Amino acid sequence: MIYADNAATTKISELALAKMLPFLQEQYGNASSLYSIGVKAKRAVEQARLQVATAINSMPSEITFTSGGSESNSWVLHGLADFNGEAFHIITSSIEHHSVLNACHALEEKGVEVTYLPINSKGFIEIERVKAAIKLNTKLVSIMFANNEIGTVQPIAEIGQLLKGKGILFHTDAVQAVGHIPVDVKSLNVDFLTASAHKFNGAKGTGILYKRSGLELSPLVFGGEQERGIRAGTENVAGIVAAGYAIEESVGEMAERVKLLRAMVEKTVKGIKERIPFVRINGDCENRLPGTVNLGFDNISGESLLHLLDLKGVCVSTSSACNSGKDEPSHVLLALGLSEQQAKSAIRISYGKYNCIDEVETVVTAVCDAYAKIIANR
Amino acid sequence: MIYADNAATTKISELALAKMLPFLQEQYGNASSLYSIGVKAKRAVEQARLQVATAINSMPSEITFTSGGSESNSWVLHGLADFNGEAFHIITSSIEHHSVLNACHALEEKGVEVTYLPINSKGFIEIERVKAAIKLNTKLVSIMFANNEIGTVQPIAEIGQLLKGKGILFHTDAVQAVGHIPVDVKSLNVDFLTASAHKFNGAKGTGILYKRSGLELSPLVFGGEQERGIRAGTENVAGIVAAGYAIEESVGEMAERVKLLRAMVEKTVKGIKERIPFVRINGDCENRLPGTVNLGFDNISGESLLHLLDLKGVCVSTSSACNSGKDEPSHVLLALGLSEQQAKSAIRISYGKYNCIDEVETVVTAVCDAYAKIIANR
Repeated sequence: MIYADNAATTKISELALAKMLPFLQEQYGNASSLYSIGVKAKRAVEQARLQVATAINSMPSEITFTSGGSESNSWVLHGLADFNGEAFHIITSSIEHHSVLNACHALEEKGVEVTYLPINSKGFIEIERVKAAIKLNTKLVSIMFANNEIGTVQPIAEIGQLLKGKGILFHTDAVQAVGHIPVDVKSLNVDFLTASAHKFNGAKGTGILYKRSGLELSPLVFGGEQERGIRAGTENVAGIVAAGYAIEESVGEMAERVKLLRAMVEKTVKGIKERIPFVRINGDCENRLPGTVNLGFDNISGESLLHLLDLKGVCVSTSSACNSGKDEPSHVLLALGLSEQQAKSAIRISYGKYNCIDEVETVVTAVCDAYAKIIANR
Repeated sequence: MIYADNAATTKISELALAKMLPFLQEQYGNASSLYSIGVKAKRAVEQARLQVATAINSMPSEITFTSGGSESNSWVLHGLADFNGEAFHIITSSIEHHSVLNACHALEEKGVEVTYLPINSKGFIEIERVKAAIKLNTKLVSIMFANNEIGTVQPIAEIGQLLKGKGILFHTDAVQAVGHIPVDVKSLNVDFLTASAHKFNGAKGTGILYKRSGLELSPLVFGGEQERGIRAGTENVAGIVAAGYAIEESVGEMAERVKLLRAMVEKTVKGIKERIPFVRINGDCENRLPGTVNLGFDNISGESLLHLLDLKGVCVSTSSACNSGKDEPSHVLLALGLSEQQAKSAIRISYGKYNCIDEVETVVTAVCDAYAKIIANR
């Protein structure tokens, strides 16, 4: 099997797995318990918090562990809304993950005004549009760092610079970025940042919210005093420990891995173009995640391609996993200006830590053969 | 080490661990992905849903996986509040877990009226008080199944019967009950039920919400189409699989285990009473969880006792783990009518699956010796 859907989820790193296992087995104490195995669990959680903080250049006290990226995104949007009864305005984009979009839709029903910025044909949010959208009562700008479907990296630092000193909070959903490309919350000037461990070879079920020191956010999950009293619930110690080691490892390997992934994507595109010359890269070719590429074939169904590739042991996706199974074209590809048919013809290939360049040949052949088969069977 | 704090968390069952491990290792697919390893993950999630549903006599479609008990509790309270803008009234008790209490406090700030029912001196919510508290706009009654600190089991079936046909929703936080004593959502007539996997020898980070078919609840976590579109976020497949096997195993072993745990608690109390005759069981002696007992010593600090026991390798707690470290007396023990000093003198011993009756002698000796040491060092 060649797993080329690392934007959906990743295989846990061997190191992260080895480090988490003791906390599923003998070190099963509740991190809030006062006796030794509780204290050991607590220390492991705090060690992971330090690892995460170091990876994104924050203070450990600015890191909260959640159950995943969707919770972190939902929490920021609803926690801020909850905090303040007055009418306010949010700026986001039309290509956000549905955890941001659907949370915004729910806020709209409560009277919050939301501006959904368009993207240009390369997949970018233009800074001028952000500037133009700001209103007197704009409270929050929430723009994703790197898109999960097309991989384009947004100008987060520029937006952070624009918002600086304006009294507008800035959140970025960095689920696809953290562990893959450099993320420094200080230089980006972000107030809130979302990450998810299973996207950087941690385990599913552990998310991260960076919240800049001093900012307030109403809880989404109420209860005990865990996570400094702002996110209750018995800590998923094993998952948190895995997140800590996975992020440390990802950041340590990043420079090398970025080069390799870029080479793999380049070779993939080149190989497919040789046999299918009109294949299109959806979104910008340069400013993107190193391992993710979205390819448009226009005249076939991406889902058919996916299933044929699955039979050959190659895993790719159409749009995001979160919305697979819905018979709707990707909102991201539509926002790029593609037609419904074009949007439905796309597949996403996303390489990661456990892929190697030797697999590219197999992927290319599988994609081209599957494409030819679909065309031939018309 | 003797771990006698199973009400705080439990060691994962060997079966549950063995069944979850493949989903942390080779079977790492995203359960929403359309290719084979995604489909396998999805099937594993649905198998776990069936196991949970069978254990509490619900339909699988009535089970939603969350990140834990606190999320499930917060979700019910805020999801219902969100659903309907009009002023309404909630009845709960003064001895609920803080995930219910703090969610209620937050709702009060939004104008929701909340009645916190007292308990009687045995630790029970009296059905007459529930009846008397009902108002025309009562929308929800939320009463915990079994208390996490004193182990008393509330008259959930009677309350369910009382509320039947009254158009009032009924939620029970059954985190301490599920897997430990029989729980049948149909015969109890509950609309919502919360459970948590790590309390029945599953893994930390997986919770359960039973929601009776046809009832609506606004999402707490927004995003993709996971969990029938009501709880987004990439499924924690490994944790969910562990929950399924752990609940099946717990229910299968329940009859035998209840007998054993009752015998262990009885022997513990008897043993301690022989050396410390005035020790008091907080809460009713009969209608309680089989493995949990809360003991009051009145003239010493429970926390000192805990730390001395820890040195002897015996793990017990003072109040709940979620509130340990706070220098406040337990709200549950105060509600029982104890003084602050009495409340602070208590320890909770909670036996579980991996304890054996041979350990009781050691626990008794450790408790009595530690008590004697504290008294002698005055």
